[in-house]
Amino acid sequence: MKLIGYFRSSAAFRVRIGLNLKGIVVDQAFCHLRKGEQGRPEYVALNPQKLVPALVLDSGQVLTQSLAILEYLEEIHPEPALLPKDPVERARVRSLALIPTADIHPIQNLRVMAYLRDKFGQSEEAAFAWSRHWIETGFDAYEATVANDRGTGAFSHGDAPSLADLCLIPQVFNATRFKVDMSRYPTIKRIFDNCMKLPAFDAAHPSKQPDAEP
Amino acid sequence: MKLIGYFRSSAAFRVRIGLNLKGIVVDQAFCHLRKGEQGRPEYVALNPQKLVPALVLDSGQVLTQSLAILEYLEEIHPEPALLPKDPVERARVRSLALIPTADIHPIQNLRVMAYLRDKFGQSEEAAFAWSRHWIETGFDAYEATVANDRGTGAFSHGDAPSLADLCLIPQVFNATRFKVDMSRYPTIKRIFDNCMKLPAFDAAHPSKQPDAEP
Repeated sequence: MKLIGYFRSSAAFRVRIGLNLKGIVVDQAFCHLRKGEQGRPEYVALNPQKLVPALVLDSGQVLTQSLAILEYLEEIHPEPALLPKDPVERARVRSLALIPTADIHPIQNLRVMAYLRDKFGQSEEAAFAWSRHWIETGFDAYEATVANDRGTGAFSHGDAPSLADLCLIPQVFNATRFKVDMSRYPTIKRIFDNCMKLPAFDAAHPSKQPDAEP
Repeated sequence: MKLIGYFRSSAAFRVRIGLNLKGIVVDQAFCHLRKGEQGRPEYVALNPQKLVPALVLDSGQVLTQSLAILEYLEEIHPEPALLPKDPVERARVRSLALIPTADIHPIQNLRVMAYLRDKFGQSEEAAFAWSRHWIETGFDAYEATVANDRGTGAFSHGDAPSLADLCLIPQVFNATRFKVDMSRYPTIKRIFDNCMKLPAFDAAHPSKQPDAEP
């Protein structure tokens, strides 16, 4: 398998953590989003969605969308599990995973920020405040869901990392770039600290990727 | 089970189609998003994410996020299936489902449109153009993925409705409100027409809900 990613992409970061946790070794290739490589014909032929990550299987088939890729990895390589066994608990984990994946990251990714500046003439400061607003709105929801909830343990769900943590941790790194005050989110902060003690999370960090830039 | 929704919510619409397809009858309650009822303490106590839908189980447990709810319904009530059996095919369906769910709808929902008007001082026309832009970007990706692909049949995946269609169809209705030219998307249009022949889709339409407004 070959993962096509970009060191700074939160979506690629999620998948890197999942591969590391499951001990799946893949080849890596890179698509430089800031240089617009996602629009190159050879990449669009692989992934018409023009986003990263994409996972190219040995059969040549291409999987896209980080959550779909992670569910696939869970199905072909179930251990260690990213989802609990019980359907209600699985729904809790998936719901948490969707907060960063659907309700934060897509509203403040590169292409949206570019629209704010280019089409609406917003300043860097205004675009920055926008991003922070949506991160805080999503983190308010995440924190309220996990704080004082019996399902929460050392991690978002129980005492092992799950799909929820894979989606949360890249968003926390992104939040620090936007100067979000993490003291507002003590449960998220505690889960983040526990995740970052694990090599699978640490090794997936953008700064440790072959295509990393200063 | 009780579904808390709002007639115009695309996310609630997805879940209504899924319940109808599977023949699961639930009680319904309503949360009027335009009146801000999602911020009322009694709703926030149920769903701290302040979004619809929420599915209240007979046990009192509350499930949130439309995709997490639909995966739960698939697990407890597998037939008719919303996902294929093969892991690669499942990934294709989930990836398609995530285009409207993560990459279109969250960027142009009520709260985002309100920010554009209130914080950025954008006109109704500019907010309208924004919405149309993100729908078209997402539909370009969806169309490119399903057109001329062997996996596509009468529906987004094969010849039975899947999770992908449940997410696509509400977005098509939303697109018509934003005057998106659907002739640009012949495969989506064909899938839409096939879906709307099915009573499960038709009965889930916003105009047919108890809380519908003109």
